[in-house]
Amino acid sequence: MCKKNGAMQRSAMYGDESPIIAFATTPGNSALSVIRCSGKGAVEMAALVFSAPEKLKNTQGNTVIHGWIAANNEKIDEALVSVFRAPKSYTGEDSVDISCHGGTVTGKAVMNALKSSGFREALPGEFTFRAFMNGKLDLTRCESVMELVAAKTDTVRRHAVTRLSGSLYTEIDEVKKLLVLVLSGAEIYLDYSEDEISAGFDTSASDEIAGRLPNKETALRALARLKKLQASWQIERVYQEGVTVVIAGRPNAGKSSVFNSFLKEDRSIVTEIPGTTRDWIEAWVNIEGIPVRLVDTAGLRDTCDSIEKIGVERSFKILQEADIVLYLIDGEQGVTAEDIEFIRRGERCVFVWNKADVSPVVSLPADFADNIISVSAKTGEGLSDLYAAITSKVTPEAASDGIFNEPAVSVGTVRQKNLVDAACSSLEEALVLAEQEEPLDIIAPLLREAVNVLGEITGEVSTADILEEMFSRFCVGK
Amino acid sequence: MCKKNGAMQRSAMYGDESPIIAFATTPGNSALSVIRCSGKGAVEMAALVFSAPEKLKNTQGNTVIHGWIAANNEKIDEALVSVFRAPKSYTGEDSVDISCHGGTVTGKAVMNALKSSGFREALPGEFTFRAFMNGKLDLTRCESVMELVAAKTDTVRRHAVTRLSGSLYTEIDEVKKLLVLVLSGAEIYLDYSEDEISAGFDTSASDEIAGRLPNKETALRALARLKKLQASWQIERVYQEGVTVVIAGRPNAGKSSVFNSFLKEDRSIVTEIPGTTRDWIEAWVNIEGIPVRLVDTAGLRDTCDSIEKIGVERSFKILQEADIVLYLIDGEQGVTAEDIEFIRRGERCVFVWNKADVSPVVSLPADFADNIISVSAKTGEGLSDLYAAITSKVTPEAASDGIFNEPAVSVGTVRQKNLVDAACSSLEEALVLAEQEEPLDIIAPLLREAVNVLGEITGEVSTADILEEMFSRFCVGK
Repeated sequence: MCKKNGAMQRSAMYGDESPIIAFATTPGNSALSVIRCSGKGAVEMAALVFSAPEKLKNTQGNTVIHGWIAANNEKIDEALVSVFRAPKSYTGEDSVDISCHGGTVTGKAVMNALKSSGFREALPGEFTFRAFMNGKLDLTRCESVMELVAAKTDTVRRHAVTRLSGSLYTEIDEVKKLLVLVLSGAEIYLDYSEDEISAGFDTSASDEIAGRLPNKETALRALARLKKLQASWQIERVYQEGVTVVIAGRPNAGKSSVFNSFLKEDRSIVTEIPGTTRDWIEAWVNIEGIPVRLVDTAGLRDTCDSIEKIGVERSFKILQEADIVLYLIDGEQGVTAEDIEFIRRGERCVFVWNKADVSPVVSLPADFADNIISVSAKTGEGLSDLYAAITSKVTPEAASDGIFNEPAVSVGTVRQKNLVDAACSSLEEALVLAEQEEPLDIIAPLLREAVNVLGEITGEVSTADILEEMFSRFCVGK
Repeated sequence: MCKKNGAMQRSAMYGDESPIIAFATTPGNSALSVIRCSGKGAVEMAALVFSAPEKLKNTQGNTVIHGWIAANNEKIDEALVSVFRAPKSYTGEDSVDISCHGGTVTGKAVMNALKSSGFREALPGEFTFRAFMNGKLDLTRCESVMELVAAKTDTVRRHAVTRLSGSLYTEIDEVKKLLVLVLSGAEIYLDYSEDEISAGFDTSASDEIAGRLPNKETALRALARLKKLQASWQIERVYQEGVTVVIAGRPNAGKSSVFNSFLKEDRSIVTEIPGTTRDWIEAWVNIEGIPVRLVDTAGLRDTCDSIEKIGVERSFKILQEADIVLYLIDGEQGVTAEDIEFIRRGERCVFVWNKADVSPVVSLPADFADNIISVSAKTGEGLSDLYAAITSKVTPEAASDGIFNEPAVSVGTVRQKNLVDAACSSLEEALVLAEQEEPLDIIAPLLREAVNVLGEITGEVSTADILEEMFSRFCVGK
């Protein structure tokens, strides 16, 4: 471990200051593409392929100029070029944003011109990595940037924005300060022998002998706040990573129709022939702020058709990834032996009686009669009940106490969660030992460990390996 | 018709100056999204949802400031805001580019905040429409912007860039000036009676009597330049719109394997079971600068499987859209009766003997033995011959005279081509009448028509209907 401004061993990949470029936008049928350039000499390097190089080189920060990107005496594209001067930029370095025409070809041609003038392509997350290294963002804010980009629903975005605003940083910092207080209280005793203390040093603390943790109340308060953060992940994870809901059932139970009702558009083939969906098809849908990966599977039935067989095998495989299985009963057929067999195994199931418009629910086996939702994909009847059943199954806490009406401080990544867990463990162990009146010299290192671990969350304490692993999961251009 | 700065009747939709917004980039898993705002009061309106409203309102043009987009006391996203002041902007109006975080959710939230502050969503091409109306771009440059965005290969981009630089505008303008010269020469005679001229007016022209067109040589030079532009479209169209190449053949002839060889990646299901590709699958590939829409079809065979039947029917339908059909012969099976039947009908066909690695070409019917290309999708053998055969089939001129080694002046859209055609027709008709020594008063209107039509190409002369039709084909945000 090392301090971020100290002797961190820089990796050959992420550590240099060489001028880098990347698309900051998705190439596509859009008006603009933005290419980001950053690093020592980035402005001068961009000027090599700009129609007015001297003007660009002399442009002040936070200024936009207009001209052409050109190389080998050929105009490549007309562009707006925004100049940012260190340290007033996203990365903290000299930076240039080139806004050229959109589409799939033009941006690439501009990119190639920039590469030929000396830029190298950025690694994933390298701009944000540099922002971190230059003290522009702590790690919780860096991660919130990635969360914002990946957000699948507005609820997720709101949580990420609170972290981008520093909510998690502040919480971690405050808890850490509490623990530093406890730790320094303990370390005073380590610096002096018990005799010295009994002999009159700091008489006000004479009742706190070694083996009894000073400021234990403070430590308990810190622990309570960490526990709250720990708990926040259970629901945050659902909102952020989403859940997989697999639609299953016998052929012709109406799986594709239910799938399409969720999507509210026709993306899956719906016909009357059993076994039409040969493979699975999936889409992300937003169910009350929860991103749901909805998967429509092939019908589950014995078949000799070799291609369909592959489909059915894949269906069983995808079923294992499901957080929830929507098991459809074909209302017209009623419950069959195959259905019963499936139902017996299905602990993550929501049972759905489909085609309720033509065949209302009748004669159900007693063991799941209370547990079935009657819908008609055709008329839309019962679908809102189905959404509610899914929501309450994946976030029972959220459904009961409305935890997400107000964005609260919460952890936003597995990395943060694991470090909060580690800090909790160390702190809890320290408190147990304190309870047992063990010597402070075995308690203090645990407290110090907790402080360090909290420092890792914000990046105050970091290692090259961890940083590299973290930023490599970012998208290129961020 | 009306002059663009004159009394053009403004459509309720495209004609107003109200502040508009649109995404200028494609929402996706990218670092940034850019939202464009333009119109009277755009800066003040954006300030309503900006964390530092006064600062934004007082920001000079071509300046970038940093802050938060916020509404109803909630931060929505951190953003860079670029301010442009009329007339120094793309549209010629006050404009604001908001660069917020990427992803599918964040930009939408920012967009909603801006809409709530008073912006309306832009119509397709409305930013460029305004740029045209404010005299920032002529119509050929406007269209080149759309061409740039739509460009599928670098060759297409290079041609579009020459038009964005004004090559077509200049050419049209020069030809028009020639015709204006001819026209004014003719009109002198219309203003005076023959007697007056014979009586001494402009004695130098006394040999040019009415019925003989003055400056005919100039008219012929103009016509030659227009003919060249006309011809340019034949090849430009191929490069710009691309061609549809459909892969056909009996089941198991290796259509998906050939398709994948073109794509150089596995996107189509390849198995050993006939009839695997139930529907068609398509992708754009770049063959020597020509964008090719490559379509892999279901096998062409009689079938009783109702789903496969749909696939086969669709295959025959898509065959009718083909510019070229790559008809695959299964090398292992040799030429079958079904193949022969197809071959007899197939005038747009390139015949391909596949699986040449295991079964070299043998015993071909005489009528197409010279016309078959032997390939192996498996080993890659013969594929470059296949690319060459496609190229020479769609652009025989380009293949023979290398017209596209240097970007020349060419027309870039059907609209431009149709207007060049119309100008040619009028001018040719005028020249025929002049040849027949018809009176100038029936020739002059044809010349005037040609001048007006050329003015339509650049937009000097335009109608609201035409403009609206043209810009509505742009993407939103452009």
